[in-house]
Amino acid sequence: MLRNYVSGGWHVATDDGRPVHDAVTGAEIARVSSTGVDFAAALDYGRRTGGPALRALTFHQRAAILKALGQHIREHRPRLYEVSARTGATLGDSKFDVDGGMGVLLAYASKAKRELPNDSVYVEGAIEPLGRGGTFLGQHVCVPLHGVAVQVNAFNFPVWGPLEKFAPAFLAGVPSLVKPATPTAFLTAALIEIIVASGLLPDGALQFVAGSLGDTFDHLTGQDLVSFTGSASTATQLRTHPTLVRNAVRFSAEADSLNLSALGPDATPGSAEFDLFVKSLVVEMTVKAGQKCTAIRRAFVPAPLLDAVTEAVAQRLARTVVGSPSNETVRMGALASLDQRDEVRRNVAALCAAGRIAFGDPEKVEVLDADAARGAFISPILLVGDPDHAAPHEVEAFGPVSTLMPYSSTEQLIEYAARGQGSLAGSIVTADPGFARDVVLGVAPWHGRLLVLNERDAKESTGHGSPLPALVHGGPGRAGGGEEMGGIRGVLHHMQRTAVQGDPDTLAAVTGRWVTGAQRRVDGVHPFRKTLAQLRPGDSVVAGPRRVTQEDVEHFAEFTGDTFYAHMDADAAAANPLFGERVAHGYLVVSLAAGLFVDPDPGPVLANFGVDNLRFLTPVKFGDELTVTLTCKQLTPRESADYGEVRWDADITRQDGESVARYDVLTLVAKE
Amino acid sequence: MLRNYVSGGWHVATDDGRPVHDAVTGAEIARVSSTGVDFAAALDYGRRTGGPALRALTFHQRAAILKALGQHIREHRPRLYEVSARTGATLGDSKFDVDGGMGVLLAYASKAKRELPNDSVYVEGAIEPLGRGGTFLGQHVCVPLHGVAVQVNAFNFPVWGPLEKFAPAFLAGVPSLVKPATPTAFLTAALIEIIVASGLLPDGALQFVAGSLGDTFDHLTGQDLVSFTGSASTATQLRTHPTLVRNAVRFSAEADSLNLSALGPDATPGSAEFDLFVKSLVVEMTVKAGQKCTAIRRAFVPAPLLDAVTEAVAQRLARTVVGSPSNETVRMGALASLDQRDEVRRNVAALCAAGRIAFGDPEKVEVLDADAARGAFISPILLVGDPDHAAPHEVEAFGPVSTLMPYSSTEQLIEYAARGQGSLAGSIVTADPGFARDVVLGVAPWHGRLLVLNERDAKESTGHGSPLPALVHGGPGRAGGGEEMGGIRGVLHHMQRTAVQGDPDTLAAVTGRWVTGAQRRVDGVHPFRKTLAQLRPGDSVVAGPRRVTQEDVEHFAEFTGDTFYAHMDADAAAANPLFGERVAHGYLVVSLAAGLFVDPDPGPVLANFGVDNLRFLTPVKFGDELTVTLTCKQLTPRESADYGEVRWDADITRQDGESVARYDVLTLVAKE
Repeated sequence: MLRNYVSGGWHVATDDGRPVHDAVTGAEIARVSSTGVDFAAALDYGRRTGGPALRALTFHQRAAILKALGQHIREHRPRLYEVSARTGATLGDSKFDVDGGMGVLLAYASKAKRELPNDSVYVEGAIEPLGRGGTFLGQHVCVPLHGVAVQVNAFNFPVWGPLEKFAPAFLAGVPSLVKPATPTAFLTAALIEIIVASGLLPDGALQFVAGSLGDTFDHLTGQDLVSFTGSASTATQLRTHPTLVRNAVRFSAEADSLNLSALGPDATPGSAEFDLFVKSLVVEMTVKAGQKCTAIRRAFVPAPLLDAVTEAVAQRLARTVVGSPSNETVRMGALASLDQRDEVRRNVAALCAAGRIAFGDPEKVEVLDADAARGAFISPILLVGDPDHAAPHEVEAFGPVSTLMPYSSTEQLIEYAARGQGSLAGSIVTADPGFARDVVLGVAPWHGRLLVLNERDAKESTGHGSPLPALVHGGPGRAGGGEEMGGIRGVLHHMQRTAVQGDPDTLAAVTGRWVTGAQRRVDGVHPFRKTLAQLRPGDSVVAGPRRVTQEDVEHFAEFTGDTFYAHMDADAAAANPLFGERVAHGYLVVSLAAGLFVDPDPGPVLANFGVDNLRFLTPVKFGDELTVTLTCKQLTPRESADYGEVRWDADITRQDGESVARYDVLTLVAKE
Repeated sequence: MLRNYVSGGWHVATDDGRPVHDAVTGAEIARVSSTGVDFAAALDYGRRTGGPALRALTFHQRAAILKALGQHIREHRPRLYEVSARTGATLGDSKFDVDGGMGVLLAYASKAKRELPNDSVYVEGAIEPLGRGGTFLGQHVCVPLHGVAVQVNAFNFPVWGPLEKFAPAFLAGVPSLVKPATPTAFLTAALIEIIVASGLLPDGALQFVAGSLGDTFDHLTGQDLVSFTGSASTATQLRTHPTLVRNAVRFSAEADSLNLSALGPDATPGSAEFDLFVKSLVVEMTVKAGQKCTAIRRAFVPAPLLDAVTEAVAQRLARTVVGSPSNETVRMGALASLDQRDEVRRNVAALCAAGRIAFGDPEKVEVLDADAARGAFISPILLVGDPDHAAPHEVEAFGPVSTLMPYSSTEQLIEYAARGQGSLAGSIVTADPGFARDVVLGVAPWHGRLLVLNERDAKESTGHGSPLPALVHGGPGRAGGGEEMGGIRGVLHHMQRTAVQGDPDTLAAVTGRWVTGAQRRVDGVHPFRKTLAQLRPGDSVVAGPRRVTQEDVEHFAEFTGDTFYAHMDADAAAANPLFGERVAHGYLVVSLAAGLFVDPDPGPVLANFGVDNLRFLTPVKFGDELTVTLTCKQLTPRESADYGEVRWDADITRQDGESVARYDVLTLVAKE
């Protein structure tokens, strides 16, 4: 009996549960049940224990935990591979799932450190000036929802699936309640055992329920959220749950879809792209025995190439060894269950109404080291179909099944693509950037992700079927209309975006950052003499004035070689519609400003590593006197270094107070 | 009979429709019906005529049309004010609605020109490197959905409501089908007559149906979207429509909510903030006779101040003149209908279970220049309530009704706020940034927008109740869970976000921008000699090398005054953990680079107006030789100027090919 992990402890169901079988041998592996779990209490535990513990951490602290967790799982991979084989997965399939899941944790940890502040509030977008006087501003901030992320997973990726939902929720500061699909729940259970044993997660940050979610949905509020991966019919049922609807609970669905791959007219037999298309199609058909929601179901090829492609794909499929994942020569394992195989056979029959089978037999397959009668084995099936028939665009056989179809023009290809009514992923195999542009922009409204594959990127390409943490995963329409991951976007899915309006001092307090118009502190100590621990947003230095002369400009021009006419040629500068006379170089202005604001002696400031958003607002003319105000804007201590980043506001003004340049200076400053 | 505008022409219903009455006199004004409208054909017209016409325009071209439309409506304001009075609105109320709506168009036009490219594809976020070799990259792009935005509006803002939904859809390139609420449909109809007569919009970009939407929802696909403002019960009904659910049609709801305002403990009687709180509460109660989804329903004050606030609010309400909007001294008009008044009275009775009425009588009101028996008039009602009772947090009287409640600590205030289960807007009236921070971050998970009001921002503040185009409008949970506007976010709500993976040349073709790793063109003509019409992304110049000597660094230090130890002090530089020896100034490096890449003679390049994302990647040491490659990255022609913006990639490398600095240079370049 698989154990559930709820309300801070392990829970064993009070009944006998449902049996789950080995996909290869048919033997019973485990029983799954959540009978006896108090779901309302589990949600409450997540909200009252997990949420506050997570919200007490900064994004960077949560990232450090994710990284450690990813490394911990890496150490326990052999155990997961072993369990994974019983789902029908080959070692390659298992790596796709297990290493992919671990990779999501590590990728999110790394992205969070680079793209999120070391703080618990996410400040989104620029300050919005709401009045002319600068006393009333707007700023969007994102804060974690105070509920639980209920994550309903599909059977096909028992490790990657739960982790790709968990990582962004955890980073956001929202606890997770993980529900695996029953047929492969034993593998997710093994993962959760490893995670819990690590002791890395705060109490309540992760709960796990195998089997039914009972009355969980009845207890959800507008602070909870549901992310679902699975069938369209289950998505419909959950989406219309009265409590979800009444409380406007966030609901994200990712459903299977009729993903396409298209071969470009440039990719004739013998070209690298022709071979890439054939290989990619066979990989997508056979990895996980085609049980991937991103797998290619519709393969479009230029009509004159249909026969050549059909033959090449069939030849390659003929070399695919099907059988027990325990045999190393096996390239395709079993489907997840015998029920699943029945479902695939039914759908192949439906597809046959619009085409013919060019390779494979749904009723017959030769298997290696396994009993074809007891395991959920099926042959890869390649169909050649009629794209003007509805079936290939609507019937999804969730197994090693794809349909090849001809197209005769780019417009027609785009029109066929749209008939799928929304997909997770598509690929276009072409070396022609123009064709790629037309197809990508033409089919993008129906796609969450599009891969353009050719000889130039094939070596590094992660392939048609792989969602990546940095890119959105999800698609419109039939694909469920949801969106997951996409880097920091996936974190924000778990947060509430709030527009805050107020005066500069209030916004500075709310965001923890100095904001234009907020109080500056000039306390007699140059801010370059303050350590990261001593610095506060608002610490400032005002320096200058320095007069800019014609001699300065000419000297700078000669020294740097920048003799642009606006600086050197009075007549040409006068004809320039923006200047009217000779002006100083922008680079001279910022160089002089640095000369004014820098405190030269050794101290906590280690380096200037960059400049952001520099705008030259008013030309500097000969004789203008420059003053610069440098103000500490934002501190980002690094968790694993003895220094951090400090962002400064630099405002260079001339003698009449007008700003001539405005920018952010980025420095590294020692903590102590 | 109000006319509908569908499928390219005016349509009059084939039956007698439903009567709509003047809110002040009770007289019948118009009849509303959509009987005979072919909704499937209207959707199809939007998709086949409106969509392609809009998609043929760039964001800037659409913005120019929005601006012209805003100016056209401005000229026709008197007509709209006149019709608006018949909805019960005072002239002030009408301006809020009409001028507000016009303002949304102008604000969106201006924001689009500043924040969107002059192109039809929106490139979102940075390039994501997906492999170490740089041959495989990811980029998110957003393209318009190919469907129709069905916009279901509430009765309270018959001009602003439709326009705030229309503007972002139009900018995105998605046609709108506008449905007004029946009680005030005659005002929206007047607006549509003015818009259609302007001739500014492409055919099919805007359709209008007063009355029932018939079977519209049965025909929606995953490419269409619905945005709804109104009651929670209607939202529930629409959200669970089988076609919407099956096709995962995007659905955004904005429902009424129990918005709060909280007075800070610092704001004692006599303080500016005390007065601001009282005034703001009375304004929110009486503008549009309290029929605003953002109006304050729950007003929290520190327990010791409850009596003083109650008295001050009651005194101010006593001075509010109720009556016919045609009389200029009238400050509050009628509710939208007699039905609406019955509903308000019922809800006031429910609120009385948890409190007492401190001002007003729901059954009795003195009115000026109107017949209290025929018009939908009601008195402002101030209640003093018990915050530990459920009613004040759940019962919304959609009229001039608010409940004052005491709180005793910041934690308690936050807890009470959460009992509203999600609000569109809240306000905190305090001069104390620390209290503001605690309350804002504490209640943000339940709010779409929060205003902090005090003496510092009051003069410029737009007030508690005003959604602004630059800020998100919508809230979680009870408020519907939707999000509208928020600047460019609102445009993206109408677009599909697609992750595109490919090699640099393909991504450059798809995005229309040069991408790191894509082909550069060096054709013997310096790109500074090319006009905007001649320049293409990828046009490059490679210049250098220039050796950087100790003399250069010392000279630059002396000239600019920047004698930072890392450049000048060998021992201190050696002790620096990042450098180990003396290094060149970053500003010197970029100044020398400009000296290398600039073509000095007068020509199409008018000015360097800024620098973005400058990062110093590797320290430049004495003797290093610098080469710079400047590559045209993105062109943004301005619609109303004879020049445009050109963004260049600058890559400074040293003798071993290592990049030492990378940044974007921003210039203005003449079109011809």
